[in-house]
Amino acid sequence: MHDVAVYAFDGMAPFELGVVVEVFGLARPELSGLLAAPWYGLKVCADRPGTALDAVGGFALTARHGLDELAAADTVVVPGVPNAFGGEVSPGLVAALRTAHERGARIVSICSGAFALAAAGLLDGKDATTHWRYADLLQQRHPKVRVNPDVLYVDNGDVLTSAGSAAGIDLCLHLVRRDHGAKVANTVARRFVVPPHRDGGQAQFIEAAVPAVEPEDDGVARSMQWALDHLASPLTISQLARAARMSDRSYLRHFTARNGTSPMRWVVTQRIAASLPLLEAPDGTVEEIAAAVGFESAATFRHHFGRVMRTSPTAYRRSFGRGVA
Amino acid sequence: MHDVAVYAFDGMAPFELGVVVEVFGLARPELSGLLAAPWYGLKVCADRPGTALDAVGGFALTARHGLDELAAADTVVVPGVPNAFGGEVSPGLVAALRTAHERGARIVSICSGAFALAAAGLLDGKDATTHWRYADLLQQRHPKVRVNPDVLYVDNGDVLTSAGSAAGIDLCLHLVRRDHGAKVANTVARRFVVPPHRDGGQAQFIEAAVPAVEPEDDGVARSMQWALDHLASPLTISQLARAARMSDRSYLRHFTARNGTSPMRWVVTQRIAASLPLLEAPDGTVEEIAAAVGFESAATFRHHFGRVMRTSPTAYRRSFGRGVA
Repeated sequence: MHDVAVYAFDGMAPFELGVVVEVFGLARPELSGLLAAPWYGLKVCADRPGTALDAVGGFALTARHGLDELAAADTVVVPGVPNAFGGEVSPGLVAALRTAHERGARIVSICSGAFALAAAGLLDGKDATTHWRYADLLQQRHPKVRVNPDVLYVDNGDVLTSAGSAAGIDLCLHLVRRDHGAKVANTVARRFVVPPHRDGGQAQFIEAAVPAVEPEDDGVARSMQWALDHLASPLTISQLARAARMSDRSYLRHFTARNGTSPMRWVVTQRIAASLPLLEAPDGTVEEIAAAVGFESAATFRHHFGRVMRTSPTAYRRSFGRGVA
Repeated sequence: MHDVAVYAFDGMAPFELGVVVEVFGLARPELSGLLAAPWYGLKVCADRPGTALDAVGGFALTARHGLDELAAADTVVVPGVPNAFGGEVSPGLVAALRTAHERGARIVSICSGAFALAAAGLLDGKDATTHWRYADLLQQRHPKVRVNPDVLYVDNGDVLTSAGSAAGIDLCLHLVRRDHGAKVANTVARRFVVPPHRDGGQAQFIEAAVPAVEPEDDGVARSMQWALDHLASPLTISQLARAARMSDRSYLRHFTARNGTSPMRWVVTQRIAASLPLLEAPDGTVEEIAAAVGFESAATFRHHFGRVMRTSPTAYRRSFGRGVA
């Protein structure tokens, strides 16, 4: 039997644990005859088994198994870390993850659980994802990790990370698909009442970010604020450089150093961000919205929207624009 | 503050509880400035607060609050019942649900939780839903309830039921939308990394049912098996009646009494069921699949598919047909 161990900790939200139990821990009479290999065994593991942990929602949760059993599992799932914005990852968990990984176990994170994998060094030099709220922080704390906040999950073979909350469902179903094939994964998804594969990445769920710049500080920040104020106009590098009071060449260098992306790429992202509330509102065609946020044409809008959001403007409007079910 | 109480019980799966905590129980700094009314307060309640309950997945769960607090809440969520196929609903819960409902509280179920609402008489004469696995059983045990297994949730104002597992997410977001508007619900959905509204109902997730008939038993059953064997041909009532060795009129009466639906409606459902594995496979156009399962045209196929599955054949193929992410 393939043992799945899931980590429980003080201050955990029960949703991600619930996902892991729902996929790997339920009895599965509906799979009889479909499985070539036995179904999973599930162990909920904590630093101190038998000790009550406080869960978000105001109840207590007591795990039966310890970190030795977590280190011995075939797949280890870390469904979060306590207080990602300020917390410390348990040294015992870090050691157990390293042991498990060296043994050849598959290490998986959901949401902020990526911080634990990063702390164990398992993500160095690899692509990884986490909840979009934590992506910047993960990148900052662990510069060797290539953080990609746009996707629902990243599969590096023996180390897998998923984006926020419900993206854990996508990754757990992906594991079932890897282990048992699409037919079994479809059956599990149907009982779960979720699609076995979701269109689009996490990017479509990320709130439009207002850049945290103080325009008085420097020319680049000033130019960014100026661009946001003139998003509907056709913008050029030279105009932005002028707003920053720099030469084009110097502006490009400063902008890229500051933002990790080129000025025009940043402008496109801001235009897409500006289009989201317009798509959510009932008025305006896609053509009008494209023009209102400064795209040359609806086709250009659709192209960039698809690349960044991994869905179409129309599908986005259908998902996020509707008022009542 | 609007108090949400969620019921915890021995043998519960943690997923649905996790959904309720994720929507109503997390701290919500991202909503500051967006809320006209205070956010929810959440209480996990059990028959015997302070007593450890066994959760699916092999861990213990201890609720802090009792049924008196559940009966006093503004919204009560029942996230399941122990062993829907054979279990009894706690008499204390039934009494508390009645008290809460009489007080004007909103009563909500997820998945098999509908059995508790039905036991309290709150669904009599009303539309309701539950997990597709339990729909027949709920209808059988509570004939006064109009069970609809096709939708993700049913909103009767003060009594709301949702379909299986993840449909609880859809219903909880619907409650947030009702209470705080679409913008707030969209923000909660984004943090949850789920769409605030899903296309399609539960029907798209229901496994194709093989009718549980013994063809030797009677003429109607024999005709049904014959129809399944000849699904690709154009089928008429007269053909089916002949296979049953009955007159058309007598066949219609017997068929409807047995199956609760007309022969042609049943045939359409079987044709759609037969189309699902074909749509999941990579080969065959929608036109070819329509013909293979006996629809006159792709347009007829699309029409019936949309009505029954609440999604299109192409969207279904996109969701269920893909092998690897």
